[in-house]
Amino acid sequence: MRFKLTIEYDGGPYVGWQRQENGASVQQAIEEAIAAFSGETVVLKGAGRTDSGVHALGQVAHFDLATGRATDTVRDAINAHLKPQPIAILSAEQVGEDFDARFSARRRHYLYRLTDRRAPLALDRGRLWWVAQPLDEAAMHQAAQALVGNHDFTTFRSSECQAKSPVKTLDSLDVSRERGEVFVRATARSFLHNQVRSMVGALKKVGEGKWPVAAVGEALAARDRARSGPVAPPDGLYLVAVDY
Amino acid sequence: MRFKLTIEYDGGPYVGWQRQENGASVQQAIEEAIAAFSGETVVLKGAGRTDSGVHALGQVAHFDLATGRATDTVRDAINAHLKPQPIAILSAEQVGEDFDARFSARRRHYLYRLTDRRAPLALDRGRLWWVAQPLDEAAMHQAAQALVGNHDFTTFRSSECQAKSPVKTLDSLDVSRERGEVFVRATARSFLHNQVRSMVGALKKVGEGKWPVAAVGEALAARDRARSGPVAPPDGLYLVAVDY
Repeated sequence: MRFKLTIEYDGGPYVGWQRQENGASVQQAIEEAIAAFSGETVVLKGAGRTDSGVHALGQVAHFDLATGRATDTVRDAINAHLKPQPIAILSAEQVGEDFDARFSARRRHYLYRLTDRRAPLALDRGRLWWVAQPLDEAAMHQAAQALVGNHDFTTFRSSECQAKSPVKTLDSLDVSRERGEVFVRATARSFLHNQVRSMVGALKKVGEGKWPVAAVGEALAARDRARSGPVAPPDGLYLVAVDY
Repeated sequence: MRFKLTIEYDGGPYVGWQRQENGASVQQAIEEAIAAFSGETVVLKGAGRTDSGVHALGQVAHFDLATGRATDTVRDAINAHLKPQPIAILSAEQVGEDFDARFSARRRHYLYRLTDRRAPLALDRGRLWWVAQPLDEAAMHQAAQALVGNHDFTTFRSSECQAKSPVKTLDSLDVSRERGEVFVRATARSFLHNQVRSMVGALKKVGEGKWPVAAVGEALAARDRARSGPVAPPDGLYLVAVDY
């Protein structure tokens, strides 16, 4: 019996989504909670391998249980066993054996939050990139449009990226000001490792006026990682939703 | 030279705004930061004495310095010395000697956030009251209207309240759903100790359907603390702004 989970978490205390030898991962925490209530050892497969410090509002993952369970019981039992960790199962659904959280995903939605306020963050620490100088979100949005479409994203790719090809199709990249913050929303079928954070790093340069608007498209065309600008910190990044 | 500060803080790690012998207070943290940069020992007077765990988006306080300083320098220097505490000076302004953060205040604005989602909180832990069952915000708003106006608020007052009179004028008490959460917004010249949290506790009973709408007005009329229902936890309460 296959279950699909929708998951919210604070990425701050974790080495990332994926199990690793060097620390606590979100995947391991949930796998252990499932084992604790069901008595079954499971492998949880996630739609997106978020890095350390990256948050999720709607990560999706699947796993199989040999024994049937009501979906509400699965959700509540995992949440009970996750306490007091900052991970919450928002919903559990029963799905067919052909559903794969990673390979069935048609689109992934990410949000990156920046703030250009002068004062440091008190209530939202670890939740945004504090830039501390005025950002021109209209210039950032204009620059972002050069990245939309099917491109070789070598410039905006981590040296550790394991994808076979650097060519991806970015469906949309929108920058706007909401509640006094600068929101960058990115949508694609899939992303390269560090792609969103690298693109945001370049857009921040434009927002500060340190790069002209055209520089982002030129950096893309150069297909050269040295042209990417800084990689934005993980604090501001959220995996918002996955479409199937 | 008198300065007015507007302050944001996460109340979680503190015993409250006011200096106390039993732990770290927000007032003391800022007084020490002022002393560290100015070399002057000051007393910081706040507009509202928030309790332990209560947050501020716009607390206001004043203090005096013997030596003149630019307001931007005051703001940035205090913030630098507050690191890494979750307290941020949003602005510093120069004001006249007749300005008193507490006694000059004309109106105080509080916000209380509740969530009725089933899943526990991951990203917003310590920031809202997690109720975990559906709340009827329209019934809560209707019930709240019985509290608006000039009343004896004995029912919604802490036993430790030091105000001379339990009679206060509540300017407004509005309940609405925003971003999937239930927001309670309260405005008055001043509040009794625990008044907002006591009122929210009663409104939550109405929202869950455990109290009829009329019960809130009846509890007020009884002028009896035993009728107040539960006091809402501090996590969801924010001092939003103070008008002068």
